[in-house]
Amino acid sequence: MEFPSELIEEAVKEISKLPGIGKKTALRLALHLLKEQEATTENLSAALIRLRKETKYCGTCHVISHTTDCTCRTISRDLSVICVVVDTPDLLAIRSTGQYQGMFHVLGGVISPIEGIGPENLHIDSLVERINASAGEVKEVILALSATMEGDTTCFYLSRKLEKTGVKITTIARGIPVGGELEYADEVTLGRSIVTRTNYTSGHI
Amino acid sequence: MEFPSELIEEAVKEISKLPGIGKKTALRLALHLLKEQEATTENLSAALIRLRKETKYCGTCHVISHTTDCTCRTISRDLSVICVVVDTPDLLAIRSTGQYQGMFHVLGGVISPIEGIGPENLHIDSLVERINASAGEVKEVILALSATMEGDTTCFYLSRKLEKTGVKITTIARGIPVGGELEYADEVTLGRSIVTRTNYTSGHI
Repeated sequence: MEFPSELIEEAVKEISKLPGIGKKTALRLALHLLKEQEATTENLSAALIRLRKETKYCGTCHVISHTTDCTCRTISRDLSVICVVVDTPDLLAIRSTGQYQGMFHVLGGVISPIEGIGPENLHIDSLVERINASAGEVKEVILALSATMEGDTTCFYLSRKLEKTGVKITTIARGIPVGGELEYADEVTLGRSIVTRTNYTSGHI
Repeated sequence: MEFPSELIEEAVKEISKLPGIGKKTALRLALHLLKEQEATTENLSAALIRLRKETKYCGTCHVISHTTDCTCRTISRDLSVICVVVDTPDLLAIRSTGQYQGMFHVLGGVISPIEGIGPENLHIDSLVERINASAGEVKEVILALSATMEGDTTCFYLSRKLEKTGVKITTIARGIPVGGELEYADEVTLGRSIVTRTNYTSGHI
């Protein structure tokens, strides 16, 4: 595509580096900003720069924060459980269900030999230290990783590592999604949901 | 959604003001920028600010440019035709077909009483002036507006305004899209395509 101005060309080039945004969408966004007041663009730019420069990660749970102090301990109502997640979106998704009030621990990825990510690149040692340092306060670790090959490998590795700490290790239930039709479920999920069947309780979500 | 940091919250707020981007996508983009190098965010921010502050509009054809000099005359190979479009994306779309080598004129909108846009808010007078000033060099004006109620109204108004200049007024063909199935075409389009039928030429695009 040929652009009428090098300023647009430059903006489109930078915007289309973002994931899921192609050149056409980038152009639409650039033209939108041109139509809006200058303050819109200034605020957007400033927010992005502040986000990138000032964001910190909690030294204990590795959650994104604007301070290095752990907010886990202050906002959690249950200090006996740690939920292990891969990254911030998963944490937000679990928190927004309203079903979990415990602490979190962000791994920062999953073990993936293809991408060259080994256990040493993840926040695994700090999880073990954290549990040991709690002196028995932490009683359960929930592994909330995606049900992929890499997720399962990471769960297995974590379970071995956490064995010595003596905490109870659980994982989120795999099964048929709420509202899902049995007919369209894949065999593995359906098989697992039968093997790990639970007692029926009415009113159960 | 509850965010772990006010920096993310602020960034998501600003990003989701862009058209077609909701809070979830905004969060994904923000987290992407956090993972990339600082330069990515810096370049993006700088490009947006430059775009917004330095973009100028040509005083003659109103096309977006980085100078106020008209590039129409220098990049066009045919100075006898002016194609009238609503905005820059339409101009880029027409130019990228490779079928048009003439000049452009950006209206900046269409007449829309509902949105309070009248002919005085559009670059119509400057079009008339431009044609008069060309002293007969401009021989044809192509109206390339969308086939909507507002587009048709604007075309009608323009045709009346341009009558006195003596230029030939044409409009882009309405009809069945190339590759389109007759069966699925709407009645109005099909009707128009029969009324405005053209002589058959093999190899015609």
